[in-house]
Amino acid sequence: MSRLLIRDLAQIASHQGEALRGRALGAVEVVEHAHVLVGEEGTIESVGPMRELPEIEGDVEEVDGTGLSAIPGLIDCHTHPAFAGDRAYEFALRAGGATYEDLLAAGGGILSTTRATRAAGAAALGEIVARHRDAMLAHGTTTFEGKSGYGLDRDTELAQLEAIVAAGGLPTWLGAHAVPPEQPDADAYVDWAIAEVLPAAAALATAADVFVERGAFGIEPARRYLRACGDAGLVLRLHGDQLSEIGAVPLAIELGARSVDHLEATGPEGVMALARSDVAAVLLPVAALYLARPMPPARALVDQGALVALATDFNPGSAFCESLPVVATLACTQLQLTPEEALGALTVNAAHVLGLPDRGRLAPGLRADIVLLDAPDWRHLAYHLAGDVVHTVVRAGRVVVSRA
Amino acid sequence: MSRLLIRDLAQIASHQGEALRGRALGAVEVVEHAHVLVGEEGTIESVGPMRELPEIEGDVEEVDGTGLSAIPGLIDCHTHPAFAGDRAYEFALRAGGATYEDLLAAGGGILSTTRATRAAGAAALGEIVARHRDAMLAHGTTTFEGKSGYGLDRDTELAQLEAIVAAGGLPTWLGAHAVPPEQPDADAYVDWAIAEVLPAAAALATAADVFVERGAFGIEPARRYLRACGDAGLVLRLHGDQLSEIGAVPLAIELGARSVDHLEATGPEGVMALARSDVAAVLLPVAALYLARPMPPARALVDQGALVALATDFNPGSAFCESLPVVATLACTQLQLTPEEALGALTVNAAHVLGLPDRGRLAPGLRADIVLLDAPDWRHLAYHLAGDVVHTVVRAGRVVVSRA
Repeated sequence: MSRLLIRDLAQIASHQGEALRGRALGAVEVVEHAHVLVGEEGTIESVGPMRELPEIEGDVEEVDGTGLSAIPGLIDCHTHPAFAGDRAYEFALRAGGATYEDLLAAGGGILSTTRATRAAGAAALGEIVARHRDAMLAHGTTTFEGKSGYGLDRDTELAQLEAIVAAGGLPTWLGAHAVPPEQPDADAYVDWAIAEVLPAAAALATAADVFVERGAFGIEPARRYLRACGDAGLVLRLHGDQLSEIGAVPLAIELGARSVDHLEATGPEGVMALARSDVAAVLLPVAALYLARPMPPARALVDQGALVALATDFNPGSAFCESLPVVATLACTQLQLTPEEALGALTVNAAHVLGLPDRGRLAPGLRADIVLLDAPDWRHLAYHLAGDVVHTVVRAGRVVVSRA
Repeated sequence: MSRLLIRDLAQIASHQGEALRGRALGAVEVVEHAHVLVGEEGTIESVGPMRELPEIEGDVEEVDGTGLSAIPGLIDCHTHPAFAGDRAYEFALRAGGATYEDLLAAGGGILSTTRATRAAGAAALGEIVARHRDAMLAHGTTTFEGKSGYGLDRDTELAQLEAIVAAGGLPTWLGAHAVPPEQPDADAYVDWAIAEVLPAAAALATAADVFVERGAFGIEPARRYLRACGDAGLVLRLHGDQLSEIGAVPLAIELGARSVDHLEATGPEGVMALARSDVAAVLLPVAALYLARPMPPARALVDQGALVALATDFNPGSAFCESLPVVATLACTQLQLTPEEALGALTVNAAHVLGLPDRGRLAPGLRADIVLLDAPDWRHLAYHLAGDVVHTVVRAGRVVVSRA
């Protein structure tokens, strides 16, 4: 691999710190007329103004950044890409007035995707995840987390995790996503999953996740599931407070979870508790949009000092959207976050949620994950909704998407 | 031009009637395993199931529709594509808490674009409109209306209209978009515009439009402007009830306007008045999203029997989005419309607003404007937010966008 010089960029924008809490999330460093130099190992050698470009010896591939801006590769820390079938019918039903709970109670929702996913087979799942990975990449996502949770049986859960690993994603075992029809008791299902799936899942996955909600998993089975996963060495995450506040935030804090995700229903006490804890708040505004629910209290979380990240929640039911730029637009229009805060929540803070300190910023020594935007002002990332704004994507030093 | 056969489509979806009021908007005819045959003149010869495909003599170009679905070319009946500069800075300020009115009062808003547009020159405006036209086309928009309104002087207003005509758009003279700094009295400005710009604008444009709002044009100057435009043979349209209800709906009805657009602030009386009138309600949910304002009362308008259309409102200040598929997603998630209603509002009813009965449906004799979606279920148009769902675009019988 030869070195790569991106020169004459109109602008680069990147945060400097890691795990940014509160208002520090808004502190973006912007450099005009800039360069990024990538070394042979796929890490950043130099980044800064053109006038500080070091003398380069040997071969270098050049990319002309004139009129473009550069940001760190985007990081999607919450997706569900390993599913078969679609839920367009359910989308149409909901548009016609059906509620999420209605669809869930009617055997639609997650379990309809479970049926299709179980039937798909491992090879098809691999192709499906790779296709969604490519769609994410075209939107500037250079790192993605992917969850299982549509199998709910041993083989399909493991096949989902393997498909995510094969596509280069960070696998999370979401063994407790829904209670499967063949084991309708949540406690019994959790016991079975811990005994029969966890040993193999822990060898594949880096994290475990549970959907804490009425109709899914209550606090007691969630606690038992997460404790067992933690004992097996997995990072702990929770889907919490999406529809109702039943105690996911206190449980996340009690167990030292890495994140609690959703939080559309979180009230002021939950906001304060998160702000005082080390649990990251992962906000998923596309899901709130699809379900026409209140948006999560993003502004309050940032203002109170919480560690906030953003993600797509890409899934076939409530967020059929692979685009983090769309998430940025929603953050700036619906969550009262600034473009600077949105960028930090999609880069450094998402890297923190995934435990990846080697990326999320443009800085020497870090992995060269870089998105070139087709605008001289990086804020077009959020400003141009569904615009064809991603011009070039560099992942680990290689150009993997290019419009040139 | 040879004939074109699109064969083996998984699905075609099209409305049948024109100018659909009320619940008729939801009546889509869906045909499985279908074809569309386009004649040499660029009009549809035959459309329906494969088993009804007529015998074809002579040369025909074939497109394999396997796995794809077809809908009529989308029609964007409300855009502002003729502007220079951008308003990313203003987007960021608003995300940080500034209101639309704050920005307007501070000399930002429309007038900041006016400065950039006046300075751009006619050649640059032509390139800019063509670029946005191409972006719209990539999202499936085969017909677009474009407004002037960033010149507010004679030469720039006419240059905007010429740029829109040159790009193949339907030009609307929005001479009363804002009160320009050099003529700060709305009445005096309207008198000047009628005397000095209207004669030339009427020779270029098909419609006239006015922004009825506090801080823009009140009812009296709007009435005088529209009456003069009507007398000059232009179709009448109004931006009304975006921020406040100051009488735009009654004025539109009084003058027999074709449409009143926005309606975020319209209350039950305005809904009923529109439902009893022939004035179309053009809803612009992207603008409501960008400005974080209440969505327009779409469900009530349809339920009461109004003629509802949807559009992007593409503009640099409050809707920097060329994508009608995004509008469809917002319609189904934020406006409580079904995918079927959204499709009708983006095709037949938008054609009605623009006075184009030759398009908006897939039917023999109509202009062959066709979008092939990369999904066997046409509802992916709305379901897959910012998805790469537009596979092929046919405009007047020619393939103008193709991913194959």
